[in-house]
This record gives sequence, structure tokens and C-alpha cells, in this order.
Amino acid sequence: MIQPVTPASQQLAIGVDTGGTNSTFGLVDHRGEIKYRGAISTSKYDNVTEYIDALYDAVAPAIDQVGGIKMIHGIGIGAPNGNYYKGTIEYAPNLKWKGIVPLAELITEKFNLPCALTNDANAAAVGEMMYGAAKGMKDFIMITLGTGVGSGIVSNGQLVLGHDGFAGELGHTIIIPNGRRHWGTNMEGSLEAYCSATGVRLTAIELLHKNPDEKSLMRKYPESELDSRIVFECAEQGDKLANEVYQFTGEVLGKAMANFVMFSSPEAVILFGGLCKAGDLILKPTRQHMEHNVLPIFRDKVKLIFSELKEADSAVLGASALVWEIK
Amino acid sequence: MIQPVTPASQQLAIGVDTGGTNSTFGLVDHRGEIKYRGAISTSKYDNVTEYIDALYDAVAPAIDQVGGIKMIHGIGIGAPNGNYYKGTIEYAPNLKWKGIVPLAELITEKFNLPCALTNDANAAAVGEMMYGAAKGMKDFIMITLGTGVGSGIVSNGQLVLGHDGFAGELGHTIIIPNGRRHWGTNMEGSLEAYCSATGVRLTAIELLHKNPDEKSLMRKYPESELDSRIVFECAEQGDKLANEVYQFTGEVLGKAMANFVMFSSPEAVILFGGLCKAGDLILKPTRQHMEHNVLPIFRDKVKLIFSELKEADSAVLGASALVWEIK
Repeated sequence: MIQPVTPASQQLAIGVDTGGTNSTFGLVDHRGEIKYRGAISTSKYDNVTEYIDALYDAVAPAIDQVGGIKMIHGIGIGAPNGNYYKGTIEYAPNLKWKGIVPLAELITEKFNLPCALTNDANAAAVGEMMYGAAKGMKDFIMITLGTGVGSGIVSNGQLVLGHDGFAGELGHTIIIPNGRRHWGTNMEGSLEAYCSATGVRLTAIELLHKNPDEKSLMRKYPESELDSRIVFECAEQGDKLANEVYQFTGEVLGKAMANFVMFSSPEAVILFGGLCKAGDLILKPTRQHMEHNVLPIFRDKVKLIFSELKEADSAVLGASALVWEIK
Repeated sequence: MIQPVTPASQQLAIGVDTGGTNSTFGLVDHRGEIKYRGAISTSKYDNVTEYIDALYDAVAPAIDQVGGIKMIHGIGIGAPNGNYYKGTIEYAPNLKWKGIVPLAELITEKFNLPCALTNDANAAAVGEMMYGAAKGMKDFIMITLGTGVGSGIVSNGQLVLGHDGFAGELGHTIIIPNGRRHWGTNMEGSLEAYCSATGVRLTAIELLHKNPDEKSLMRKYPESELDSRIVFECAEQGDKLANEVYQFTGEVLGKAMANFVMFSSPEAVILFGGLCKAGDLILKPTRQHMEHNVLPIFRDKVKLIFSELKEADSAVLGASALVWEIK
């Protein structure tokens, strides 16, 4: 008997967010509703094949529950250093699988489903375009401010992937030549060295050292424990130095964005990730320095907004959205 | 009697390069061969209508010569601050026509031909993609190093125009925060402040002042006469300070390009304009600093090459190429 084909509009897409520590997944419908969620460890698996086996074991019951594999259109993956063209993860510093990992191919073999893969920030940008703050936009830049600084760029309605699929490494652009050395890349003055969680922590420590006589709530914590969350809590309580940390972080971020705006002239820059919890503390100085450093033709034109997706859902939604592009 | 329609493949496109001083034009076939050339003054006409009348008077005989208006597919224009979406020139500092000029509309009215318009650097990029060094490339960045520094960005085979049509103002991105103040924009440390002809001149003067005891051929010229051409001639004769001017200019350009590469991951960066005459003097330090400032995943991948089009032809060819996109 010939199986009736399920129309794509009734199918679900599996979105997987492969993070350094954990991987979350979801079965998502066309409207961006997550019908089923789950998670497995990433870091537990030294071997990518074991990881894929574990992912299969976690996802298979959900596939059965929604009516079997015929109800699934494909699998989309957001992963660090993910390459859309090749379906590979290449030299990801935060993953245990070294070198070039053909993840999409391995997933397709195991699941018998087509698989699309891109880096996590690109996936978040696609999610934002289909279901979030960038709905209906054709030109925007997504900046993820978390442990690191990532970016996904959309121009003319399409992800900017570049010649080799690695476009959008805005976190590693140099904003302050000869500035702070990055702990991982060894480069000086990159955006990530200042505007990631680690960057905020380092700025706080620098300011505490530079102003030894100034009182600060941040001094209540041993330096080894001081992190971006504590800086935020102190700033909220009105601590002057903690507020200066955000002023400075926003200054660097705003200057960087001015350059990005003059590159691709986006309708909006969308901020996403842990640092966004600081709200106006980070948004105000960022906007001020962005506007100050663009040509007049760009001034007061570019929206600077926060993501509208829940942080936990964004990457899964974005990864699932890749699936609908699979022909 | 119904006129037979001339197939587009047998038609010609009129390309116009509207410069601050002069405008050149050409009637160009599908293969990029310029069949007829001409030029008029731009700066002579305070009023844009007079300019268009003069352009019409200059172009009309050529149209007649190739068989009349039925042989023309349309008119493409490259102009400073040209906006592709709106067909306007907006607040171009080097043109006499102030405010927003609806040039494409006025041209269509006068010539009775469809007209497409973009900025001069974008036109050069399109020309390079269709007929020059970027033939067959889908991702590249064109940097024009002339009186100013312009840029045209192609991603996924399309010009990056941005939300409002003003994308690609890379000359105004800040490379050295708090650096040299730009004579026109008043911004500090922009690429154009260093890597334009004026920038080269200013760097030479700065180096001469900073090293008062060092002999240099450049000291033979009064400061008011020192320009980028003289710096080049002195460097060619082995003058140490003049060579340092290019080292420094290449350093700034290379750092800027590293950031551009991490934005859009192009297959090539193509250099165009007067500064390219310096050849390896500018290319070597630029390449060195570009490679030094990109992440390892981009290293030794991006071609850094000179334009393959004659400077005089490039803008006209690019402007004419816009015409074939007109539906």
C-alpha cells in the first residue's frame, strides 16, 4: 500500500540547540508553537556518535507521540561554529568534538530525516525573523550577548552566510585597537572582550582597581566570585561603579553597532541574551553611542530593541525554522 | 503599424557616472563593450533640470546613431549618495543640487526610458561582478580608494542595499577611536580619514612633522602642494618616510578589512581607485594587517585584489549593468 504523503503544513519541525553543556530540542509547528520539549547533555558525550544516539533516544518517543516520522519535515540544528553550506561543525572551542564534524550527515543517517544546520546566532536570527521582534523585517542584525558575543545578519530577507558560510562573526571584530586581550582568541580589543558576560566581569574588576578609594557594593564579593549577575544586582541598587560598568559596556557596544549599521543599513539591531536583563542600563548608553558614531543619514533611523522570544525557546525555534527552508 | 519589439539581447544600456566635476556616459552592450562614449560637465549646472537637458543633448546623437530609442533598454546612473530604492540623490556633499533630488524620475521624463540609480561605489561593484575581477563571485566587497573611500558590498549575488538603500558606507566606519578628525563629517578615526587621497596627504604631513631630523624627498615640496601622487613618487624612489606613509595607510586599511571580512565573509576584497596605483606598496601592508586581525577560520582564505576594469570605464559599465536588472 502506498503511504499517503502528509502535507508540509501539517508537519512539525525538530529544532535542536546544541550548546556547549546541554542540548535542548523541540517539535515545532508552522506557527512557532513548541509542541514537545526535551533536553540532553552535550558535554557528557566525548564522541559525537554517542551524542547522536542519546539525542535519538530522547527525541524518538516524541516523534511517536505526534504520529511517527511521516509527521516530521526535518531536523534543524543551531550549533557553535556551525556551517550551513556543509552541514558541519568546525573547530568549535566549546565542544568536545574536535576538528570538522559532519553533524547534519550523521543526523540524517540516524534519523532518516533531512537536516539543516547553522551557527547558534544565525538560528536565533531566523527564529526572530519568523516568530519574534524581526517579523516582517528584511534587513536586521541580531547580536547575542551571553557567555560570548554572537551575531546573525539578515540582508534582503536572507541570512548573510558569506562565501564559506562563516559570516557574522561580529563578536570578534576589533572595536578598540590594542585594547583588552581576549582570553580565548588572543586578539586585542574585540567586541566580545568587552560586551560578553566575561567582559562585563573584567570591566568591573578593572574599575574597582582603578578607583581604590571609591566605595562600591561590588567590593563585598571576592574578585573570583564577581560576575555579570552581581554587577547587575549592584547597579540596580544604585551602585555608582557598577553603573559605570554598564556605561562603558554600552559605549563599546554602541560604537561597534555604529560600524555595523554603516555596513548593512539594517532596519533594526536586535539584542538577545543574558546582558539584556540589564534593560535600560545597557540600552541607553548603547543607543547614545550608536547614534553619535553614525553618519547623519543613518541617525534616528535604526531601531535598537530586545528580542521578543524567551531565551530558552529562541534557539530551538530558530533551528526548527531552518527546516522549512529544506526543499 | 505595430512596431516590432527589439529583443533585450540586441539592445544597449546607457550608463552614466555622475561625478562631482564631470559626468561620463557610455552606450554599452550585453558583453560590457562600450559602443559610444561621451562626457559633460556636472558642476557647471546649478540646476538639475539644466544638467538633464545637457545630458540629453549629449546622448541623443548617440541614440540616433545606434538606431533610435528602441535600441536602448534603459539608463543606469551611478551617483554619490544615490538611493537605489527611491531613485534619488540625497544630500550629496560634492554636488551642487541640494536636498533630495529625484534624478531617476526626471531622467525618465526627459528620455522616456526606464532609469535605475545607485551610488557610485555600488555601481562599480556591479560592474566588477559583471565584467571585471569579481566575475562569477557571489560574495565580495569592493573598496574604492580615491578622493574619498567608498564601498559596494555583494552578498549572495546581490548588492547589499539595506533597509533604506544606504548600506555600504564603509569609508565612514570608525577604525581608530578618537583618531584623526575627518574634514567633512567631523567624525574621529574613520577609514576615509586615513585611506583616501587626502588621508595619505595628511599622514605624510604628520610623519614629516613627527620626524623633523629625518631627510625625505617629500620635504622638497611646500606642504600645500604635497599630495598623494607626490608621496607615491617619493616612495617609488625609495624614500623612507614616504614608504612609512604607505605602511601606516595599509595598516589602517588592513585592520578595517579584517572587520569587514568577519562581517560578511567575502570571497574577495577588490580595491579600486587612485591609491591602487601604489601597487604592492599598499597591498602588502594591507594584506599583512588584514590576515593578522581576522579569526583563524578566515585566515589565508580571502583574496585581496585590484580591480580589473579601467578606472575611466568602471563606473559607466557598472551603471549600465544596473539597466539589465530593470524589469
